[in-house]
Amino acid sequence: MRHVLDMKDFSKEEVERLVERALQLKKMRQRPKALRGKFLATAFFEPSTRTKLSFQRAAKELGMKVIDFITEISSLRKGETDLDTLLTLEAMEINAIVVRTRKNEAPKYFAQHLSVPVINGGDGTNEHPTQAFLDLTTLYEHFAKLDLRVAIVGDILHSRVARSLVEGLNKFGANVRLCGPEEFVPKTFPGVELIAHDLREAVKDVDAIYTLRIQKERLEQVFDNVEEFFIEYQINEEILKAAPSHAVIMHPGPINRNVEISDEVAYSKRSLILNQVKNGVYARMAVLEEALRLDETVRSLEESMA
Amino acid sequence: MRHVLDMKDFSKEEVERLVERALQLKKMRQRPKALRGKFLATAFFEPSTRTKLSFQRAAKELGMKVIDFITEISSLRKGETDLDTLLTLEAMEINAIVVRTRKNEAPKYFAQHLSVPVINGGDGTNEHPTQAFLDLTTLYEHFAKLDLRVAIVGDILHSRVARSLVEGLNKFGANVRLCGPEEFVPKTFPGVELIAHDLREAVKDVDAIYTLRIQKERLEQVFDNVEEFFIEYQINEEILKAAPSHAVIMHPGPINRNVEISDEVAYSKRSLILNQVKNGVYARMAVLEEALRLDETVRSLEESMA
Amino acid sequence: MRHVLDMKDFSKEEVERLVERALQLKKMRQRPKALRGKFLATAFFEPSTRTKLSFQRAAKELGMKVIDFITEISSLRKGETDLDTLLTLEAMEINAIVVRTRKNEAPKYFAQHLSVPVINGGDGTNEHPTQAFLDLTTLYEHFAKLDLRVAIVGDILHSRVARSLVEGLNKFGANVRLCGPEEFVPKTFPGVELIAHDLREAVKDVDAIYTLRIQKERLEQVFDNVEEFFIEYQINEEILKAAPSHAVIMHPGPINRNVEISDEVAYSKRSLILNQVKNGVYARMAVLEEALRLDETVRSLEESMA
Repeated sequence: MRHVLDMKDFSKEEVERLVERALQLKKMRQRPKALRGKFLATAFFEPSTRTKLSFQRAAKELGMKVIDFITEISSLRKGETDLDTLLTLEAMEINAIVVRTRKNEAPKYFAQHLSVPVINGGDGTNEHPTQAFLDLTTLYEHFAKLDLRVAIVGDILHSRVARSLVEGLNKFGANVRLCGPEEFVPKTFPGVELIAHDLREAVKDVDAIYTLRIQKERLEQVFDNVEEFFIEYQINEEILKAAPSHAVIMHPGPINRNVEISDEVAYSKRSLILNQVKNGVYARMAVLEEALRLDETVRSLEESMA
Repeated sequence: MRHVLDMKDFSKEEVERLVERALQLKKMRQRPKALRGKFLATAFFEPSTRTKLSFQRAAKELGMKVIDFITEISSLRKGETDLDTLLTLEAMEINAIVVRTRKNEAPKYFAQHLSVPVINGGDGTNEHPTQAFLDLTTLYEHFAKLDLRVAIVGDILHSRVARSLVEGLNKFGANVRLCGPEEFVPKTFPGVELIAHDLREAVKDVDAIYTLRIQKERLEQVFDNVEEFFIEYQINEEILKAAPSHAVIMHPGPINRNVEISDEVAYSKRSLILNQVKNGVYARMAVLEEALRLDETVRSLEESMA
Repeated sequence: MRHVLDMKDFSKEEVERLVERALQLKKMRQRPKALRGKFLATAFFEPSTRTKLSFQRAAKELGMKVIDFITEISSLRKGETDLDTLLTLEAMEINAIVVRTRKNEAPKYFAQHLSVPVINGGDGTNEHPTQAFLDLTTLYEHFAKLDLRVAIVGDILHSRVARSLVEGLNKFGANVRLCGPEEFVPKTFPGVELIAHDLREAVKDVDAIYTLRIQKERLEQVFDNVEEFFIEYQINEEILKAAPSHAVIMHPGPINRNVEISDEVAYSKRSLILNQVKNGVYARMAVLEEALRLDETVRSLEESMA
């Protein structure tokens, strides 16, 4: 077995293998049956329909069964820690657990206490590695290479999506630049040379523009007029004139229509947004295989030695 | 593939075929495997346990897998439109989507933008076609014909159930009369001759009395004493004395016990209410087959030509 | 078919058979396929993640399909009684229903009106028979016998877990003693000789200490400072010095960490808490087989006579 915690735990070769596996799974008519009958638990301590459904879709396609722990309903139960919940799921003979949590690094902590693979479905502002896997899969599918120029635009500071994506792109020598309002972009970022506040400048020679979701529901608790901060950073037809004509548009979803991205761009031919969703299912199939792979090897060894 | 949007889109012959297929599926010991491994998404933007569970039960009986999009939990996510949600589900390689929505005609709008079949699970006050399919199946099973006399009783004005049922019955030359308090019955209704306010008069020669659910939780926001309006329209033993002894009782559920219908009638031998629930599963199996049918034909054609 | 309502409905021999079946199922590599394709509905009118997930896990392992009725979402629907909901599920051709309810004896009432097996997943302060089955399975697995000395500690008065467990242990001639604050322990309890308020006295010669969960969320509505009542009854290293060294610790979960049980005890080698969770899946598989067993016999008889 293997925990899937952070993009930084994966070597370039491993990322390559997973991206290629995702695209291979996409083309197959008959999916592999190795995981048939195994159980995946989805434990989303923070709500997230999109990622959860994508994992459920992926798991079921591989013949896995899914147990969904719904926190909204069970949160009435005070006193039980998140780790207790996961230990309980593990004891129910679940084979792998996807965790979404508000707490940075919590999946790492869970992994230390669990003997089934933990898959990080997003932890606070830290990482969202399966999002990066699907983003890389989508870029590789489109460009057939990953040493690209990519501008990531928006609230970089609070974005686990940005962190995982930069980590992934850097393995391939990509040129990444970050762009957003001063309040929402760190002064330095590991592995990134260019940090800009001028969007036109940032996109002028890129292959891809990756717009982040503005998490209004959270930011509005801290700032008034959240949208004002980002108004100059909306990706729209006007801005695209400053970018190369071959540049594609990406977004992790769900989009705030006409906030960080205009409608006409979100659903244009240059947008890979729905490809990202589609590839998310295949990337997560590849991740599930990876998470349960070593487990299999060990178990079949044990059986042959018994 | 075929969208299932409104009862009015189906010809008499098509309705007949679907009703007969539902009753055929009901009798089978081994259900067909054509849809095995396909995915159905249930996207209920308005809560509805009964219809959703019925679809899930039907889909799983046919070997389909189900992905359930739960709006209550995900509605935190502002900014994503319902269409965006459905486009996302489609991109996850879902094969059909059942939609329940408060907005009239929204399923039609969704269908224009999606390439997978959209099944209307109820849209505002417009239509609820699969309810009508199960109602017709239940009537046909009982009477072996559909040119019946049917009284529909209650809040006709806000009822998508009534609208779809009238549409369906009219195809078979049924004689439909509508009955309810003045405030809740339109002055005219396409295809209906008799609109009455006297319940005894309305039921005196009918084959079936179809009581609608009083949607108290909504009406109470507009009217005081909602129950007072409908007190004369309760179906009870007393009223049944005015109807022929062979007349059956129907209700789309869930019932408000002793409001629109008395307990002793709801669970009497004349009541077909639980037959409706049972036939709902088979009618929805037939609808799922229909929705995915042409798709299959096209796909197998494509494969044989590849 | 057979309803599974109360532990007191089962003979000693039947309990033995179910406990042995649970342990047999635990050891199997290939689970039996007799229930494949049958449908289980989980209808939890009171939220309970743990029991629900355990039943879902058990049912899916046996190849059953699961329909989950979520009350939180559907409770908007006023006017439908719980029995109506269950009649509706039954009409959807569900093969068995697990019910959790706040109302004592409600499962018995439901069973009188339903023709599918009703499994009690906990009813008010009455019984929680499948919890007792898994507790007995865990004790039997550890001690290879059930005529043990067991101290049950905490809020006995409101505990359906205690009631079912005492009922079960008594069949095997176990020596059960109850211990807790005066306000929370009845003066007499059927089949129990020793009712104590001194925890050290109660545990001094036991084989197992069974700590109950303090249901703070409910008790706090009645009492101030709920934790104060129970402070002398916490199971911790200090208290364990008063118990035999072979005594094991059990808890139905979820635990209130460092309230009724200290962390170091809950996750110590003497704790069987996670074994209980694990055995819960197998005990519930055995219960599902039992609930659907006679049904099968009758049905196959009918078929052979047809």
